Amino acid sequence: MKIQIDEVYIQRMIDRLAEMHEPGTLYARRSFTEVYRKSREWLKEEMRKLGLSVSVDRAANLIGLYGSVPGDSAGLVGGEKAVWAIGSHTDTVANGGRFDGIAGVVSGLAVVKALSEAGYRLKRPLAVIDFLAEEPCAFGLSTVGSRGMAGRLSPEMLRYEDDAGRTLAEGIQAMGGDPSKLTQPLCSSDEVKGFLELHIEQGPVLEKEGLDIGIVTGIAGIRRYRVTVTGEQGHSGTVPMTMRKDALVAASEMVTRIHQLARHASESAPCVATVGVLDVGPNHANVIPGRVTFTVETRSIDASTLANLSWGILQQVKDVANSHGVTSEFISLSETSPVTSDPHLLDILHQSAASLGLTKTELPSGAGHDAAQMASIAPTAMVFIPCRGGLSHHPDEFSTYEQVARGASVLAEAIVRLNEEEDNA
Amino acid sequence: MKIQIDEVYIQRMIDRLAEMHEPGTLYARRSFTEVYRKSREWLKEEMRKLGLSVSVDRAANLIGLYGSVPGDSAGLVGGEKAVWAIGSHTDTVANGGRFDGIAGVVSGLAVVKALSEAGYRLKRPLAVIDFLAEEPCAFGLSTVGSRGMAGRLSPEMLRYEDDAGRTLAEGIQAMGGDPSKLTQPLCSSDEVKGFLELHIEQGPVLEKEGLDIGIVTGIAGIRRYRVTVTGEQGHSGTVPMTMRKDALVAASEMVTRIHQLARHASESAPCVATVGVLDVGPNHANVIPGRVTFTVETRSIDASTLANLSWGILQQVKDVANSHGVTSEFISLSETSPVTSDPHLLDILHQSAASLGLTKTELPSGAGHDAAQMASIAPTAMVFIPCRGGLSHHPDEFSTYEQVARGASVLAEAIVRLNEEEDNA
Repeated sequence: MKIQIDEVYIQRMIDRLAEMHEPGTLYARRSFTEVYRKSREWLKEEMRKLGLSVSVDRAANLIGLYGSVPGDSAGLVGGEKAVWAIGSHTDTVANGGRFDGIAGVVSGLAVVKALSEAGYRLKRPLAVIDFLAEEPCAFGLSTVGSRGMAGRLSPEMLRYEDDAGRTLAEGIQAMGGDPSKLTQPLCSSDEVKGFLELHIEQGPVLEKEGLDIGIVTGIAGIRRYRVTVTGEQGHSGTVPMTMRKDALVAASEMVTRIHQLARHASESAPCVATVGVLDVGPNHANVIPGRVTFTVETRSIDASTLANLSWGILQQVKDVANSHGVTSEFISLSETSPVTSDPHLLDILHQSAASLGLTKTELPSGAGHDAAQMASIAPTAMVFIPCRGGLSHHPDEFSTYEQVARGASVLAEAIVRLNEEEDNA
Repeated sequence: MKIQIDEVYIQRMIDRLAEMHEPGTLYARRSFTEVYRKSREWLKEEMRKLGLSVSVDRAANLIGLYGSVPGDSAGLVGGEKAVWAIGSHTDTVANGGRFDGIAGVVSGLAVVKALSEAGYRLKRPLAVIDFLAEEPCAFGLSTVGSRGMAGRLSPEMLRYEDDAGRTLAEGIQAMGGDPSKLTQPLCSSDEVKGFLELHIEQGPVLEKEGLDIGIVTGIAGIRRYRVTVTGEQGHSGTVPMTMRKDALVAASEMVTRIHQLARHASESAPCVATVGVLDVGPNHANVIPGRVTFTVETRSIDASTLANLSWGILQQVKDVANSHGVTSEFISLSETSPVTSDPHLLDILHQSAASLGLTKTELPSGAGHDAAQMASIAPTAMVFIPCRGGLSHHPDEFSTYEQVARGASVLAEAIVRLNEEEDNA
């Protein structure tokens, strides 16, 4: 059966959402803002136009159920049957663009439209989810809605406050949620048979390799550390080179070694390490730096690679500090675990892309996504599509509507294949 | 003849000056402040008590002439005979201490006191000079008084303004100078037979080597550059290690190579190179740095070493940029030439220290001094004394009064030897 994604629909939906932006910005639509609230009202209407049963769950996720009977739609788990789900988010960062998250939600709707127009009947409902507040929000948290659905919003998180002193719980309530019953998962793997998310790659690989589709093998765990290097501050003219304990010279060698170590490790398993912040003290042209602080971030979809890389970096930092006669302090700031995509869903995605004649590769996701939260309650996998220059979180962020449509066609084909499996089972 | 430096006098003078500090500071006495003006009035009185003829020259340098007849004292060149001169400064930086500059002026006075008490008569006058504003001042210039004496205050410099919009010319006038006739040297080598300056080392060498005296072979020329490294900013999670153009990784290798190059070069000739300022853009933990700017400062007392080192650094920066696929920009910010000490004065200082049984070494001066300006109009040399931990420009800056007295005794012995040469000539 031919399932045809409507590229014009995708373009219309993305362009219409892009018009709903915060004043003084090109495309920004941060969560909890008035324009975000309005855009979701519009999105509800668009879901209804497609014949979806629309609801907002306790975590204020907007859910449209396709193929459910009326009355089933009290959130994702309202119906009798477990569902398939496709979702992403429509909020952006402060300087955000038109595709990050949005392409995933619009693709979900395009899949429903295509199935509906083809008259294809599913054995179980398909949910299209617009998760609340995936990007870092005013309350200092990201992936709020998917955390909530997965039961990963702690009471402490719900008390996080924005600058105006409003709590996250109050924010969720204002968006139509019910934060009083949020610390347990809103659904389980018995109720969600599989979750798929389409997202722009936010990296350069697909574009540089000229590929249509990235099949995401996992979502990286992230560890962040702060390193402080303390040497001896001194007058730049009076301390001979051999008597110096220059904190910046030591830190520079650390940065070099961290890069080399990660580059070497990434030949065996996908991983990255980045020193993104580096501050010099006192930072005067005629003073030998006495102190340098920097962040180290490691990411990998493989837990042991992540642990080994992080451990190796710590050893390098210690080694360099010793050889330069400076001291180093290595503090863990945060740590999240890697998420592995569901093997069967990966298979289905591979088959789907192949059957559509699309070029593809497997990729890790270095960035976090709603899918990483959903993976704790359901089999999960992701589809990446190319984006221009690997750029995201920027008004210039761009994928062609054709690229989005190709990704959506993989999702549609995957849903059909999952549905056919049910027939055969 | 036994010339005996009075260590108690040195202590009293240093301690008394230390009491004259800006409100809310321990020892700060910046030039052009009210407390600085008052301290100079006090210093004039102390000069008169020693029998000096006191004057303020057109550059507002305070000059005490020993051995001149009354009426000779319209500045340094008032008398018929050329003079010997000893000088330094009594202003400090904002967070300054009790010894930088002050030890040199007080030593000059202690020399006069010792010669006077010994009844030792000089063939020509000896000037003790308190130079105006040696440290960077509110008008954005350093070594103001010695520049003025050497005819190195340009009309442009005289128009420099402080935050209140007052010009340097007005500041000099308020301190008793006459800025209308300052762009020519106030005296020449025909009029100054030799200039000596005692200063704390501001570095660790004498203390670490347990030596009494550093005989300064020259004052380093200084070149400052700003390097801008531009790579490709990117998401720290989505750009594989092999596709990165990380500006900080490139800059770090540059810092390492600059350090290695200077360290190697300093084995052949005294020189240093320092990266004191380094700023990362955008400096976020989850963003691959797209741009890094840093300063490079090179110093050497040898002009060709300075030029070669600076050229070598430029080459290294280019090399590293090429190998990392980033671009680099290398801009000269400032450049001063090295000053070589007068060989005969160096001889005299060596003989003087040796005859007093003091331990000594030759040292370059990496920091700038009034002597660097005076070298353009007179034979010049400097004596360094140890300072605790190499520390300066800090309230904890410290030399023992005995260490200052040892340095002053070298100056006194040198003046006696210069005087005896005149007898023999």
